[in-house]
Amino acid sequence: MKQVIDFVKTNREKEKQPAESLGFGKYFTDHMFVMDYDETRGWHEPKVVPYQPLTLEPSSMVFHYGQAIFEGLKAYRTQDGKVQLFRPNKNIERLNFSCQRMSIPTLDEELVLDAIMQLITIEKDWVPDGEGTSLYIRPFIIATEPYLGVRSSKRYKFLIILSPVGSYYGGDQLKPVKIYVEENYVRAAKGGVGHVKTSGNYAASLKAQEEAEALGYDQVLWLDAKENKYVEEVGSMNIFFKIKGEVVTPQLNGSILSGITRSSVLQLLEYWNVPVSERKISIEEVFDAYYRGELEEAFGAGTAAVISPVGELSWNNQKITFAQDRSDNIAKRLYESITNIQLGKEPDPFQWTLEVK
Amino acid sequence: MKQVIDFVKTNREKEKQPAESLGFGKYFTDHMFVMDYDETRGWHEPKVVPYQPLTLEPSSMVFHYGQAIFEGLKAYRTQDGKVQLFRPNKNIERLNFSCQRMSIPTLDEELVLDAIMQLITIEKDWVPDGEGTSLYIRPFIIATEPYLGVRSSKRYKFLIILSPVGSYYGGDQLKPVKIYVEENYVRAAKGGVGHVKTSGNYAASLKAQEEAEALGYDQVLWLDAKENKYVEEVGSMNIFFKIKGEVVTPQLNGSILSGITRSSVLQLLEYWNVPVSERKISIEEVFDAYYRGELEEAFGAGTAAVISPVGELSWNNQKITFAQDRSDNIAKRLYESITNIQLGKEPDPFQWTLEVK
Ligand SMILES: Cc1ncc(COP(=O)(O)O)c(C=O)c1O
Ligand SMILES: Cc1ncc(COP(=O)(O)O)c(C=O)c1O
Repeated sequence: MKQVIDFVKTNREKEKQPAESLGFGKYFTDHMFVMDYDETRGWHEPKVVPYQPLTLEPSSMVFHYGQAIFEGLKAYRTQDGKVQLFRPNKNIERLNFSCQRMSIPTLDEELVLDAIMQLITIEKDWVPDGEGTSLYIRPFIIATEPYLGVRSSKRYKFLIILSPVGSYYGGDQLKPVKIYVEENYVRAAKGGVGHVKTSGNYAASLKAQEEAEALGYDQVLWLDAKENKYVEEVGSMNIFFKIKGEVVTPQLNGSILSGITRSSVLQLLEYWNVPVSERKISIEEVFDAYYRGELEEAFGAGTAAVISPVGELSWNNQKITFAQDRSDNIAKRLYESITNIQLGKEPDPFQWTLEVK
Repeated sequence: MKQVIDFVKTNREKEKQPAESLGFGKYFTDHMFVMDYDETRGWHEPKVVPYQPLTLEPSSMVFHYGQAIFEGLKAYRTQDGKVQLFRPNKNIERLNFSCQRMSIPTLDEELVLDAIMQLITIEKDWVPDGEGTSLYIRPFIIATEPYLGVRSSKRYKFLIILSPVGSYYGGDQLKPVKIYVEENYVRAAKGGVGHVKTSGNYAASLKAQEEAEALGYDQVLWLDAKENKYVEEVGSMNIFFKIKGEVVTPQLNGSILSGITRSSVLQLLEYWNVPVSERKISIEEVFDAYYRGELEEAFGAGTAAVISPVGELSWNNQKITFAQDRSDNIAKRLYESITNIQLGKEPDPFQWTLEVK
């Protein structure tokens, strides 16, 4: 039986920003979805309400013990004015995967999809249509029980908020990023929580990111916690290297996020018969390939920027610069295919998109 | 120049609970300390206000990227009715240390001490006097900027809340705990954030803790992330082993918390001329010492329970049971000395206590 989602309409609609001043995650729409959990009622009272502040006890567990998870996906405005989502079921599955690892009660996946669909239907006018714009969807769960003992919370709040966004890194798409290979700080260890979207992973990464920025880099490339040797992922992207025509990406090993863009890239490459390999790859191998003249490209993949070509990679006082004008450039081809599918400009052979009616 | 802390008195005092029903972290006093940070004003407007819920935007960064740190210390009621703190400067120092690692602007340490002192002066009647009770002090900082980009927040809230507490593990003091050595999950890696009190560390530990509880254990003992071999610490305690008369505890290695109880234990043992050693210790060495009949005791040390003797230690299908009635028992001696100093029953040779006048 389908659960009914209540709707309380706002009586004060906000002004919408022009596409060029959107930025990322600064503006929010008029409504949000909210649902609470407690032990007797489980997840209950799903509703769409006016976007509003949360009122939480200072002892709410999320503030102290960080039980919080989130997702990030986008709704796109197609050429013919429709609105569609990109692989939302993957995000909802991953949300529940994060729940399990973080001892948070899982959600009814059908209800979550329904909530996203209804919320976006209500906020349809907020889906922007400028170049590189979209409506960013942020589902998240926080522990709300007012209690200071260290154990999992007995109360939670699940919310979905929406933010009309421009391009993540500001400026133009496919702008090459400068990446710094981090050797002092560690993001996540096997047996930890690096493979789930929990808030603490991001807090733990800020210091390294700031130090890399101070050196003139855009992003950090993390290495494994055990040997400080194997490539993991970038801040909020999975990483790919093209070596002698083969695209290599670190395998899912329990410490990197299973990116949905990553999965889409792999599927497209297979479809195109481009050789791909998910495996352990050391940073040394990457640099060796470069010195042998076999490293053709590197790029990141994630919802925010879709595909980000790497312009420069710095490790241990060595620096790789990538030419961006190779005729066999795969990052550009991937970027165009994925965004064309997202925007309904190209057929969608994998049924990745879902229209919001 | 000393900063003035404003005070807004509550007009609705709460009822106090009897000592035996306090538990840990369930009840909060009538007032709290709060101070905000923004880029132009820095930390500003320190004030004591009625204990009340926080109103935060759903996009507040703490909910998404987990930039949150905290401290935990206690105020004790002495025999003659005074109220005193235990090494508060150590907690304040550690708070700033956590700030630095988590890219949060540091606090004026003098002001923080002043805030604690003034808040407790106001809430003096809330300091309980039953056996094993105290007033738990929870300073914490959360990122409040409403923004979804991954970077450190430009706004924060620093709060201090107070909770009258009984004994942490419920029931009697010095109750031996059953500890499970965790081999699948990892708490923290070198280069990560395990050595600071940030919220994500605790969320990351819940699953292992729950699985250990399901097997009948009270707490998890973590091993290092690199080799899964060296002893790290317990959920919220540092760990000590007494082997052939020497007390051994893992050295501060960048992935365990530098506990204030740990530091007090080390200082007392030196003062008593008990041999101590801070060093790497593998779980195998602990079990080997046991099989050779050389492992005399194990105990945890942390603010919540002060000293917790280990009753049982389980690793890799092997189990150690500790006799609790040895005449040379050091856990009991430490517990008594530390709590006697905290309660003003014994001289305080190290000037650990600070009276709240
Ligand atoms: C740590 C991390 N890795 C990778 C990704 C890319 O995942 P996705 O493609 O699902 O956005 C993200 C962003 O979501 C991330 O936060
Ligand atoms: C992870 C962890 N280790 C050790 C401790 C013990 O530290 P302290 O003695 O300062 O309370 C705590 C508790 O504060 C803790 O959270």
